[in-house]
Amino acid sequence: MDRDEALKLTKAQMTEHRYQHTLGVMETALSLANRYGADRAKAELAAIFHDYAKFRPKDEMKEIIRTEGMSLDLLDHNPELWHAPVGAFLVRTEAGINDQEILDAIAFHTSGRVDMPLLDKIVFLADYIEPGRNFPGVAEVRETAKNSLDGAVIMALRNTIIFLMKKNQAVYPETFYAYNDLIMKTKEQMQ
Amino acid sequence: MDRDEALKLTKAQMTEHRYQHTLGVMETALSLANRYGADRAKAELAAIFHDYAKFRPKDEMKEIIRTEGMSLDLLDHNPELWHAPVGAFLVRTEAGINDQEILDAIAFHTSGRVDMPLLDKIVFLADYIEPGRNFPGVAEVRETAKNSLDGAVIMALRNTIIFLMKKNQAVYPETFYAYNDLIMKTKEQMQ
Repeated sequence: MDRDEALKLTKAQMTEHRYQHTLGVMETALSLANRYGADRAKAELAAIFHDYAKFRPKDEMKEIIRTEGMSLDLLDHNPELWHAPVGAFLVRTEAGINDQEILDAIAFHTSGRVDMPLLDKIVFLADYIEPGRNFPGVAEVRETAKNSLDGAVIMALRNTIIFLMKKNQAVYPETFYAYNDLIMKTKEQMQ
Repeated sequence: MDRDEALKLTKAQMTEHRYQHTLGVMETALSLANRYGADRAKAELAAIFHDYAKFRPKDEMKEIIRTEGMSLDLLDHNPELWHAPVGAFLVRTEAGINDQEILDAIAFHTSGRVDMPLLDKIVFLADYIEPGRNFPGVAEVRETAKNSLDGAVIMALRNTIIFLMKKNQAVYPETFYAYNDLIMKTKEQMQ
């Protein structure tokens, strides 16, 4: 699928504000793909579709999580997490994208996971640092992303976990596992 | 076992500085036991023995973790965690304490765990807030401990996790599970 068709499909699913965010993620994902040697076309499509399910009704998302055999502990956690795996499902069934790397990058763009492949990291990070983002700590992550993809992903995971904990919220275990996994791998590489 | 015998046994295992900390934990655990209705004698013994293994050589602790069927992922995490489960083992085999509630409170006083019973929470918290402790955030936890045991344990777990993450360290999963578990239970109680 080419960029224009993908943009048209995704634009129909969201507010103008969210579409502008999507364009920012797309540009940032392309720039990260160039810097870290990922497949540009895949990074572009995954970024365009990453928030495809963002505005689906909660009940529809719940139903898809249940009927499609997704991790049921999602339902015990923040509904903000649901649009990522549900989005991967809908992008496959409604937009006809079958590339598993793209679908995975969409599915894990909010939570992260253990053993994130390059494309996962790029979409996760692009979503966090795209130019429209403006929250405490984002400038430092943007700066780190110029030299260290893993370093920047660790910072984004850490900021997310600390943000949730300071709001007295539970943290989705996959996010915590992703953090520990990258920290341990980084230490192994330094040894 | 009475207090004096327990103190004598534990004193022989540690520096004077650590013994003074132990006395602080004992007094704090007794005060928390009074406030929250725990068994005073058990709280006292668990507190006295909580750091029994603190000064054992790392190799001895490693060996005990391996041969006694303890969670092997301890070995991938900070050795600071080891003295707690190893301590429970040594307090049973060397000091002859067989009460499982006491041994568990010793075993989990550093990591915490899911479904912490009252005695676990008291020893965990007493270790964190005893009068000799003086790190950022401890005053707030002490204050909260006057009214909410769970609230104070959540704060201590959160502070510990954030402290480790800011130092770019991995977080032991059990600590993270303990935090999520108490947060979720607290929310259920409020609903």
